[in-house]
Amino acid sequence: MNIPSFHKTYLDYLNQHPFSGNPSTLYAPMNYILSLGGKRIRPILALIGNEIASGNINHGLEIAHAVEVFHNFSLIHDDIMDNADVRRGNPTVHVKWDMATAILSGDNMLVKVFHILSKYNGPEKDRILSNFIQVSTEVCEGQQSDMDFSSNAVLPTELAYLEMIRKKTAVLLGCSLQCGFLSGNGSIEDSQLFYDYAINLGLSFQLKDDFIDSFVDAEISGKKQGGDILEGKKTWLYLKSLEINDEETKRLFQLPNSDEKIKAILLLWKSLKLDQLMEEKIALYDQKANEILHKINEKGYSTLLLSELSSVLTERKN
Amino acid sequence: MNIPSFHKTYLDYLNQHPFSGNPSTLYAPMNYILSLGGKRIRPILALIGNEIASGNINHGLEIAHAVEVFHNFSLIHDDIMDNADVRRGNPTVHVKWDMATAILSGDNMLVKVFHILSKYNGPEKDRILSNFIQVSTEVCEGQQSDMDFSSNAVLPTELAYLEMIRKKTAVLLGCSLQCGFLSGNGSIEDSQLFYDYAINLGLSFQLKDDFIDSFVDAEISGKKQGGDILEGKKTWLYLKSLEINDEETKRLFQLPNSDEKIKAILLLWKSLKLDQLMEEKIALYDQKANEILHKINEKGYSTLLLSELSSVLTERKN
Repeated sequence: MNIPSFHKTYLDYLNQHPFSGNPSTLYAPMNYILSLGGKRIRPILALIGNEIASGNINHGLEIAHAVEVFHNFSLIHDDIMDNADVRRGNPTVHVKWDMATAILSGDNMLVKVFHILSKYNGPEKDRILSNFIQVSTEVCEGQQSDMDFSSNAVLPTELAYLEMIRKKTAVLLGCSLQCGFLSGNGSIEDSQLFYDYAINLGLSFQLKDDFIDSFVDAEISGKKQGGDILEGKKTWLYLKSLEINDEETKRLFQLPNSDEKIKAILLLWKSLKLDQLMEEKIALYDQKANEILHKINEKGYSTLLLSELSSVLTERKN
Repeated sequence: MNIPSFHKTYLDYLNQHPFSGNPSTLYAPMNYILSLGGKRIRPILALIGNEIASGNINHGLEIAHAVEVFHNFSLIHDDIMDNADVRRGNPTVHVKWDMATAILSGDNMLVKVFHILSKYNGPEKDRILSNFIQVSTEVCEGQQSDMDFSSNAVLPTELAYLEMIRKKTAVLLGCSLQCGFLSGNGSIEDSQLFYDYAINLGLSFQLKDDFIDSFVDAEISGKKQGGDILEGKKTWLYLKSLEINDEETKRLFQLPNSDEKIKAILLLWKSLKLDQLMEEKIALYDQKANEILHKINEKGYSTLLLSELSSVLTERKN
């Protein structure tokens, strides 16, 4: 198996397991959001974990589906909070339907995650359930911190920012790979390595995304350079910039939004060598991930699929 | 034990189990909504079920807490959808904090329900978990139907209306009593009787609430007579009225809101003998509940606590 074949295997499973019930107005948005595509990184991670542990693929598919349903629950609710109109080129659920339907279909998807896990009868059922519960709470915590940061209620430290992206993005990747591995009858002890690997991958991935937003041309990245600056996002770059040159950072961010504002801030950041600093930070997480990959290899597991996935991940954010 | 002592026992447990975590902005609303009081009917039902089965009260308290946390998750999210500013004389969560915090703290409470159930190690753990999952989905479905009805997207039949209030209100009462009974090591077979009893109690309770809104003086009920009429709610009375006198019902409901409108509609409903019809409908559910209570008694279980609770319930809606 390779990444494209895992992708296809999960999509086939997804198509064969649509949600249904009454009223249909509650279920249509659940199937809609799941149909919008994307790279399906989380279910693929679960299937990779399952394959590495040489497991029963049916158990892997159940875990893959649980993580993808969870991820899509969080997308529906996050889109309400972020006032986002578009998701993968299509209207978001609260725009296509309404806010009440978006809240309720999200709630019901969260319930369905636990429904899928309660029917799962592969290895390590209890452990997988408690991993999901832990991660579900952390994802809520991460999103709340992100909201707190953007409402200016709290100015995060660098550590608090990294903790926020760990919870908001990395832990679900960790849970996907770890629980997939457990579903393949992998040992609990070794499963921790897979979790830790995906956490570092997730942190690097999120920081790269922020890096690209500021330092990569729109022609290459496919999205407007400086979008985070215009949104006033409290990114790692913004926090570091404050730390090094508080006064100038504040002055520039108070300017009205314009291309000149973006240019001025990027100029400041380059003069402070923040691009270099950030690349070093990203390299640190990549290095940690590689060290763990090495340990995984030493334990006799094949790491080919993980290397393949890591390059798919860096293609662009999903 | 009697109802007030169950109430106190649960409140003590609640006070000893506050939620905590980071960021505190996510956890404060969870503790806030749980502190707002109310009759605590659902946890009391769980404790009664546990006591009737002569169970270990600690297991009963865990179930009691799970149902109360679930109920309060649904209150936070319903208050957003209903645009409600006040809950039990206090600001609702999305008013006191903001909408994002209300969505996220509600989500996290739903996760905590499954956290509590995953740590529960009393009898019938799997059965209780799957009951909660079933009921959680039904509560989402009931609320979605209620929203669909109020947005005029769908005009419900009488049957669809009753199904909506069964899901929105009755099933959680059923789950509370049944899972409490199971937590006390009660048999699965007999637990169904307790579920069915609470379902009929819940349906009667909800219809009584609608009856009171229209036919009981504010002096006695403590709330403005005809509130549902002004809100244009698709109640059982409205649906029956349409069924019997479509034209006049529509004409009166199209009038601008006023005390005269309320008077005219109540006059119509009394002339159609809807008050009598509704009392007969309520009596049917009460009779079913009593028949089940009789069966429970025949099986050798004490029903004193259930009779006591039923009179607490009818005092007023919680």
